[in-house]
Amino acid sequence: MARWSPDARSRLAQAALELYLERGFEQTTVAEIAGRAGLTERTFFRHFADKREVLFVRTAALETHMVEAVLGAPEGRPMDLIVAGLSAGDTFFRDSRAWSQRREQVILANASLMERELIKINTLKAVLAAALVRRGVAEPAATLAAAAGTVVYRQAFERWIGAPEEAEWATMVQQVREDLDLVLGHQEQA
Amino acid sequence: MARWSPDARSRLAQAALELYLERGFEQTTVAEIAGRAGLTERTFFRHFADKREVLFVRTAALETHMVEAVLGAPEGRPMDLIVAGLSAGDTFFRDSRAWSQRREQVILANASLMERELIKINTLKAVLAAALVRRGVAEPAATLAAAAGTVVYRQAFERWIGAPEEAEWATMVQQVREDLDLVLGHQEQA
Repeated sequence: MARWSPDARSRLAQAALELYLERGFEQTTVAEIAGRAGLTERTFFRHFADKREVLFVRTAALETHMVEAVLGAPEGRPMDLIVAGLSAGDTFFRDSRAWSQRREQVILANASLMERELIKINTLKAVLAAALVRRGVAEPAATLAAAAGTVVYRQAFERWIGAPEEAEWATMVQQVREDLDLVLGHQEQA
Repeated sequence: MARWSPDARSRLAQAALELYLERGFEQTTVAEIAGRAGLTERTFFRHFADKREVLFVRTAALETHMVEAVLGAPEGRPMDLIVAGLSAGDTFFRDSRAWSQRREQVILANASLMERELIKINTLKAVLAAALVRRGVAEPAATLAAAAGTVVYRQAFERWIGAPEEAEWATMVQQVREDLDLVLGHQEQA
């Protein structure tokens, strides 16, 4: 069982992940996912457009949460606002490392899931850029900072799922931001 | 006609782009593309896996060219090597602005083409990271620098297709790199 609320959406997501790991993503049908969750196929499609989308069950909520954090962050340079937004993911990531690890394993093994992941990251970029614009950052700087933010997001995520249980998401975000400064040649300020 | 060599691949790409603009991507068949190029459907599939891939006719060659430039660049910090790689795209981009503008218009209007574009950028990230590793950059710094490089690449591309005819690709890359420093909060060094 997922540790988060066992409503229909999360039951379907949990069932899908189990089946994708047991039988493979391609070999699993929506009917089987619904069956394992004790729900109907019709219910599945009320919640998810397809069997790829079910693995992105919390993406929209995470995005909204990060956007709100960007909008509510103290004054700062564009990347400070973005880092405040990303760090707010802490509440989402806590207690979900095992789920995220298994989910990542499935995504990396399937090109069509990796495609969906890239689209989600591109959407995150767009919503973070829009949030920066609302904070008074002009384009194209807003999109550039948001794109750099998704780079930090993705690498922080990869480190976080491989990190010890006690490692915190916000710490990973901060570390990657510092490493980004290093590779860009700003180590004097780190 | 494309200004680059009128071989089968480029004739097919040119025909595809024209048809996608005239009728829409979804409404165009491979048979129609081949017909307009004066070639057979069989020839099309010898060169391209599908009708999305035909718009990425030069992507692999551009990647190879950029990777070689990273491998041959003077010693520097990871992002200096990446910028040297990206800047080497100059020879590819020169004289192809009109094609690139029309191609971009088609891609932005079609979700499935945008997906393919995101996959290509993800591949660019992977090959640039591998080139950095060959230059002695350790992971995860190599992937982080390469990912930042694709952010620069994408925004430089967007600026370049909207820029006056005389604007040079390498100049755009340099400007975006400086703007990235600004949004990250390193304007003191710019």
